[in-house]
This record gives sequence, C-alpha cells and structure tokens, in this order.
Amino acid sequence: MTSAKKLRVTSNPGQKGDENTLLGPDFARAFNPKSVAVVGASRASSGDAGSWRNPSGQFIPYLQHLGYRGKIYPVNPKATEILGLKAYPNLASLPEAPDMVTVSVPARFLVGVLDECASIGALNVHVFTSGFSETSTPEGIELEKVVLEAAERGRLRLVGPNCLGIHSPRHRFSTIGDVKSKPGGAAFVAQSGGHSMDFIFRASDTGLGVSKVISFGNALVLDSPDYLEYLAEDEDTKTIGMYLEGVKDGKRLLRLVKEINTVKPVIIWKGGLTASGSRAAASHTASLTGQRQVWDAFFKQTGAVEAGSVEEIVGVMRAFTHLPKTRGNRVVLIGSGGGNSVAAADICSGEGLDMTVLSQETSERLREFIPDAGNSVRNPLDLSFMSNVRERQKQAAEVVTRDPAVDLVMMIPSLAEYTDLGGNPERAVAEEFAGIARDGTNGKPVVAVLPGQIRDPKIRIDHQRLQREFDRVGVLAYTSLRRACSSLARFVAYHRRQESLGGD
Amino acid sequence: MTSAKKLRVTSNPGQKGDENTLLGPDFARAFNPKSVAVVGASRASSGDAGSWRNPSGQFIPYLQHLGYRGKIYPVNPKATEILGLKAYPNLASLPEAPDMVTVSVPARFLVGVLDECASIGALNVHVFTSGFSETSTPEGIELEKVVLEAAERGRLRLVGPNCLGIHSPRHRFSTIGDVKSKPGGAAFVAQSGGHSMDFIFRASDTGLGVSKVISFGNALVLDSPDYLEYLAEDEDTKTIGMYLEGVKDGKRLLRLVKEINTVKPVIIWKGGLTASGSRAAASHTASLTGQRQVWDAFFKQTGAVEAGSVEEIVGVMRAFTHLPKTRGNRVVLIGSGGGNSVAAADICSGEGLDMTVLSQETSERLREFIPDAGNSVRNPLDLSFMSNVRERQKQAAEVVTRDPAVDLVMMIPSLAEYTDLGGNPERAVAEEFAGIARDGTNGKPVVAVLPGQIRDPKIRIDHQRLQREFDRVGVLAYTSLRRACSSLARFVAYHRRQESLGGD
Repeated sequence: MTSAKKLRVTSNPGQKGDENTLLGPDFARAFNPKSVAVVGASRASSGDAGSWRNPSGQFIPYLQHLGYRGKIYPVNPKATEILGLKAYPNLASLPEAPDMVTVSVPARFLVGVLDECASIGALNVHVFTSGFSETSTPEGIELEKVVLEAAERGRLRLVGPNCLGIHSPRHRFSTIGDVKSKPGGAAFVAQSGGHSMDFIFRASDTGLGVSKVISFGNALVLDSPDYLEYLAEDEDTKTIGMYLEGVKDGKRLLRLVKEINTVKPVIIWKGGLTASGSRAAASHTASLTGQRQVWDAFFKQTGAVEAGSVEEIVGVMRAFTHLPKTRGNRVVLIGSGGGNSVAAADICSGEGLDMTVLSQETSERLREFIPDAGNSVRNPLDLSFMSNVRERQKQAAEVVTRDPAVDLVMMIPSLAEYTDLGGNPERAVAEEFAGIARDGTNGKPVVAVLPGQIRDPKIRIDHQRLQREFDRVGVLAYTSLRRACSSLARFVAYHRRQESLGGD
Repeated sequence: MTSAKKLRVTSNPGQKGDENTLLGPDFARAFNPKSVAVVGASRASSGDAGSWRNPSGQFIPYLQHLGYRGKIYPVNPKATEILGLKAYPNLASLPEAPDMVTVSVPARFLVGVLDECASIGALNVHVFTSGFSETSTPEGIELEKVVLEAAERGRLRLVGPNCLGIHSPRHRFSTIGDVKSKPGGAAFVAQSGGHSMDFIFRASDTGLGVSKVISFGNALVLDSPDYLEYLAEDEDTKTIGMYLEGVKDGKRLLRLVKEINTVKPVIIWKGGLTASGSRAAASHTASLTGQRQVWDAFFKQTGAVEAGSVEEIVGVMRAFTHLPKTRGNRVVLIGSGGGNSVAAADICSGEGLDMTVLSQETSERLREFIPDAGNSVRNPLDLSFMSNVRERQKQAAEVVTRDPAVDLVMMIPSLAEYTDLGGNPERAVAEEFAGIARDGTNGKPVVAVLPGQIRDPKIRIDHQRLQREFDRVGVLAYTSLRRACSSLARFVAYHRRQESLGGD
C-alpha cells in the first residue's frame, strides 16, 4: 500500500475521519429534489441570448426547459417575481426546507447563505460562486477557510464551490445546462464544469444513457471519493466516469475505486499529469496533482480504466453499456479499402487490440466468395470495389466468427450500396447490422464503424441519422475506427484484469 | 549509414541503378497534359450514382466536372462515342500521342495496352488496374513480372498499377476524384488511393492549397523516391507529404529526403509499423515494411517530420504554409475555461510544446485588467465568465507577447461575444483576429483555435463559415487544440533541427 500512501497528497480538514461519510439517502434527494431554492437568482434571469454573460441567471431557465416537476423557489431580496415564479427575500421565508439549494451569490455573501441553509435544515447545497483558493490570492484562500467552517458547523453536504453542480436526467433536474440526455446507467464526476458539459453533450450525441453528472469544483467538503461512494450505492448507476485534477484523500479514493470497480467499471481521466497541466490545475481548482508514476500504480492496483479525454470516457462507457463480457482482444475488421486497411491494422495494434491472423481454413472459405483482384482475404478484409458488398459482408461475418481466433468483429457498412434502395437507407443499414449482430456472428459481439462525415455527394445518407438508427436498433457503433479500437481495447482489458483478480 | 542500408528491404529490378531517373520535364506533362487517353473507358461511364460500382468509369466525368481544358480521348473498341466524346478503338488510332494515358482494362489485357503506349510514344501511363502481386497469388505475382517487362522495354513512366493516379488542381486534371482543391504549394504522395482522396478532402476543407497529389499503388516502376525527386524540382511544390507502406530503395529514399527536406519540408506517415499493419500492407501493395527502429533512425537522419495520419500531415503543412520560421516552442494560450485549461496544458506538454510560465512582470500587467474570481492570469489564461472578453483577449495578446518567454500565441475566440453583433459575426471574429495577428502580438505568430462544432444554440455562428473566414483573412486556425499543438510542435521541431544541422 506504499503508493496508496503517496496519493494522500494533503489532508482535508473538512473530511470526516470515519468511513461513514456525510452522504446517505438524504444526499440522494439532491438529484431528485421535490423542491429547489435558487439563491442569487438574477432578476435578469432569462432564456435569451444575452444572459450567457451571467450563467447564474440560467439555473431557472434550465429547469423550466428540462421540464423539472418539483418546486422552484427563487431567492432574491430585491425581487417579488422571477420568470413567473414568486421570489423570496431569503431562505428563512420559504414555505419549506428545500431538498436542494443552488447558490450563486458573490463570494463575500456565501457564508451568510450557508448559515441560513443550516438554520432551516436545507443541507444539500450546490455552490456555483467562485473566488476562493483557485485564485491563489491570500484573500481567496482565507475566504475559503471561513466557508469551510460554515459548511462544517452546519453539516452541509456542499457541492463546490466554483462548480456547475448536478445533472440528473431521469428527474429532469440540472444546474449544469439545459441539454436533455437520455436516462441510463452512466454516471460522470468531474471537478471541471466544462468537462461535465462536454460529457452530457457527447452522451446525448451518441445515445449513451446517463444516471448522474456531478461537477464539483474545489471539492471543499465533498470530494471525488464521496461522490464515488454515493454512486456505488445508486441503483441507476452501472458505470462511473471521472475527470480528476487532484484528490485530497488519495488512499480512500484508491480503496473505493478498487472495490467499486469490480461491480461498476470506473473509468478515470486524470488531468494535470504533465508539468504544465499540473500548474494549470493548481490555478483551476487549487488541486495538488500527483506524479505520473503514482497514478500508474493507482491504475494498476485498482484495475480502473484509464482514459485521456471525455470522448474516450464516453466511448468506453458505451462498450460497457452495449456489449457482453468479452475477454479476448482478437478482432477482425470487415470492409475497408487499401491504405485504410494498413492504417486500420496499425490503429488496432497501437490501441492494444490484436488484428488476428485468420486460419487457413477460414481464408479458404472466404476465397469462395471474395475474388482476389483489388481485395484481400487477410484481416482486415478489404471488400472495396466489389459488387454486392452487403451480401458478402454478411457471409464474411458468418465465416470469420466460426474461426476460434476471432473474439470480436468490427464492420464498416458499404453505404453506397444502400443509397440505391430509396426509402430510409439509414434504417436499412442499421437493421441489416442488427440482423447480423443477432443471428450472423455465432454469438460473437459485432461493432459497427460508421463515418464521422460522408463526403461523397453520391451517397445519400445522413450520417447523424445513421448514428441515431444504430442507437435505436441497439448495435454499438463508433464514428471512427480509432475511437472504436481504443474503446474496445479498454473494455476487454478491464474484463481480463477482473478475471486475473479472480473477480468478474 | 547502416540503417539506411537496412531500409533497402528488397531490390527492385525495375529501378534504374543510376540516379538519372526516368523522370524529367516529360513527366511534368503527366500533371498538365494537353491530352489524355482513357483506355478502358466504360460505355457506362456516367456521373450518376450507380456508377460508383465501377470507378474506372468515372475518370471522364471527373475531368469534365473539374473543367479540364485538354483533349480527352476515350479508348474502347466497342464504342464510337462516350459521354459526348468521340471514342477510339485503340491507341494507335488516336490523332496524336497523348501526354497521359489512364488505363483501367482488366489485368490480363494490360501488357497489350502498355506495348501500344510504347509504340505510339505515349510514355506517361497511369494504371488503375489491380490484380497483381498485392493479391499474393502465384498468378498475380507472375502477371506483375510480365507487366514490368513491358514497362521496361517501353521505357514507360508508369504510375501504379493498383492506384488512383494523379491530381493536379492548377491544371484541373485529376484521376483521383472530382473534388476541387485550391491550387497551392502542398504536394502529397501515397501508395494508398484512400489516403490520397482523404488528403484532397482535408486540404479542401481547411483551405490548404495543393500542387500535386500522386497515388502510386504497387510502385512497380516509379516508387516514392522518383516522385520525391520530381516534386523537389517542381516549382509549384513548397512542402511534401507522404504516406508510405514500403519502399524498394530505402537508401535512395533516405538520401533524397535528407537533401530535399532542407529546402522543402517533408512530412511522412509510415504505415505498417505494427505487426498487424505490416501484414495488411503486404496484402495491400505487396510492400515489405520496415521495423520501428529502422524508421526511427530514418527520421533522425533525415530530419523529416513524422506524422501519424493524413489529418496530421495536413495540419503540419498548414503551419508551414502560414507561419514564419519559428524555433521557439514556448506557447501561451489565451481564452479557455476551467478543466479545459488543465487539459489544454496537458495536451501542449504531451504534444511537445512548452506551456510557458509567464514572468512576474507579465502577470502583474495582466492583473490590471483580469480580475481574479473565476479567472486566471497563469498560462493558459482562463478568461471564461468575464465581461468584454474580446477586448481583454486583445490586451492580453499584446501584454504576453512582450514577455521574452513567449514564442507563439494560441487564442480561442469568445464566440458568444460576437453573436450579439448581427451582420456577419464569422467575418467579425476572423477580422478581429487578423488585426491582432497583424499589429497586436509584437511580431510573434498567433494561431486561432476554433471549435470543431458549436453546441450552444445561443451562439449563432456557423463553424464552417467561421473556418472559411479565417482562411480568407489568412490567419492559421485549427478546429481542435490537439491538432493545433501537434502541428505547431512538429513545425517548430523541424526548424530547430534545421538550425542544429546548420541549415535553415
């Protein structure tokens, strides 16, 4: 446990020493609040374009846009009504203690608001306000200490400060933005609001279902291990993605990730691992970041999946969401052309998959219906410039998946063949793939690789509609081979590690 | 020169031993032909959607679409007219020896056509036809030998076989596709037709001007060193990108790249460097590929720029096209938000740039107009959630470029600030950046980082139009920070190496 100790880069005076954290069923109400108070709701709150200058003014429009069904209490001493809602001068005048309080008052007023929260028993608090230790100024650092004291004496479950807060699509509740994501099993936790928004956008784009997103900023009271512990218990959450800059109790994080990861895969992007990134992290969320070697040991010990971007996290989570447990990394790629086959093989190898060598028997079977000129029966299977590629892909998938050296199939649709069909070619492609995935691969998983954009004007297929159709029929599809490979390689490596650890 | 010797992985009986290659002014006419014969022009040649099944039928429509101004001679013994053009039964019946011949007859007829080319003195020949050594069949290998003999006895300048051929936008001549690219200084040479098309698309998307593109397939007669030698002499070509699988005379390639790279930067993507990629390359263009270590030595000795994708090649070429010679890698990034700053710093470091530490003096000057809360005067400069970001970016650019620790500036426009302007906000952004680049950075280069897509519906800016406007005003802009950093790092490293080699 040496490296675990190294991870404890600083102690957190706000962290309770025992393992019973502040979080319990009461914190769950932060994600499904029957009522929310918006303290510092601007009278200028509005949904129109000018209001981006003051994001705090957007919380109420977000909730209205998402169709939030609980009560919203704007709190502003200078207003009687905001966006059609009765406004209250302070928290004490509310008709009830709200399940959640979102605070965006200027930094100097924060302590007063937190004391008010405590006095009315509203203990779930999201603090959007910034201006604390992340500024590296003596005043900011001092002010943060006072805020921490207020939070501790009130036993507040404080998310933040300096963060966007919570997104909970099943309950139509979000302080992060007004983007609708599909309810599902993927949770994401990040110090950064930008990455949290990015996660929601990318999940929404790719059809990944989301349970909870938490943007937690300076981690003054609640830190990543707390959220992790909460999500481990959360029934909606099946996989957990994290973007971390620093962590205050590294030992606890390590223990939790190691434990939770055996049940719910944990995918972590660690920011600030370079010297420049580390300096930037210090000024962003006042985090002390760890060294590369320490984090290497962390990933090794916990078995968590390492990622390098939000896009990568979403890609891996989609594999966990769609595919059955798969331990083999021997892939076959059906349908690409020329130099792309070489690049494809390089990408596969580079990302950690094995572009498998097909058996002599399989090659012979393939040669029965794949002529030589301009094509290849090696892996990747180059079916460019062939006639009736659709039918041959189907046959090829059936033949190669009988080969014991194949664990996974990746397939690139020959879109030109579907544009002649008329009607809804996007649906035709997706349904044909769904049929192959269901009956045509001898039980082995099949993943589609779709173009990120379609450049040939003769191919009358809309690439976004195509992605939606694949999502609808439930076939895992990626819009680049690199993303597909990096996601599948991490997915497979996770299951291998679990097996070697005796779990899974 | 040990490693150079290692590169000679196989000898090529078609390669002339002397250094006076087949290429000279006569080969230049292949790119600017006054007349072209299309042998094997299909009677089904057409521009309509169905014809993608037979790409050979597309050569004439390509030329017509591009506005090729020379003569086109369709050659087909069974037709009298193709696409409104008089068809000829064979090459001998043409009224002149064409400057270029494009051949797409079935493999078994190729030798006959090549002999005909020689007999009428049409020595520039592009062979689209495939079915040779790339099939790994005894028949294919045998047939290729016979083709080589025919090409040698006719002293043909044969491009191919198994390739898409040539693209020359200044002369509106292309057998690669009908995409119009802007004439300019970037040349690209690849065994792969797919990568050649990809290069043309990406150059067209990003406004990179193109001199010549050559897709050369099996490299039976002319190989990459020949094309390189030709492009070294070509006045239109200022930088050279290459995608290589294998090369037959590695020693010559090394010598040429080393020499040419001092005058025209050479950017190389070597495919097939992994075991899987190497197997795929063998079946694609019958190339024997080299080992990683050999190619590491190659890049070290030649000083050529290594790239890992077509996108990367285009990114680096754009830096060479737009920026003045720059040897320093210390960058400052102005305008990003929160976690993105950390990721940005990690990306910079990871790609080989130094996210520089600003001097105390610079920091103090910045603090005069950048308040602390929610922002940062460290590098990257986080200007999110500020008012009047436009003006402050401009001020910041002026201040940081006075710092001797800054070599390059990257700047992210605050698009939301421009949407209120009405009119043509894309133009307003680009012109403001052009003004800064011209007068506001103390002579240091500035690069814009634009979003790849714009997700916020409140920001009424079209990202493609935005990219076009940056292209129009001549400010180098990338649509991702990673692409910007990887391009700039390679660009700077090139100039550093040139300096250390005593050149530049």
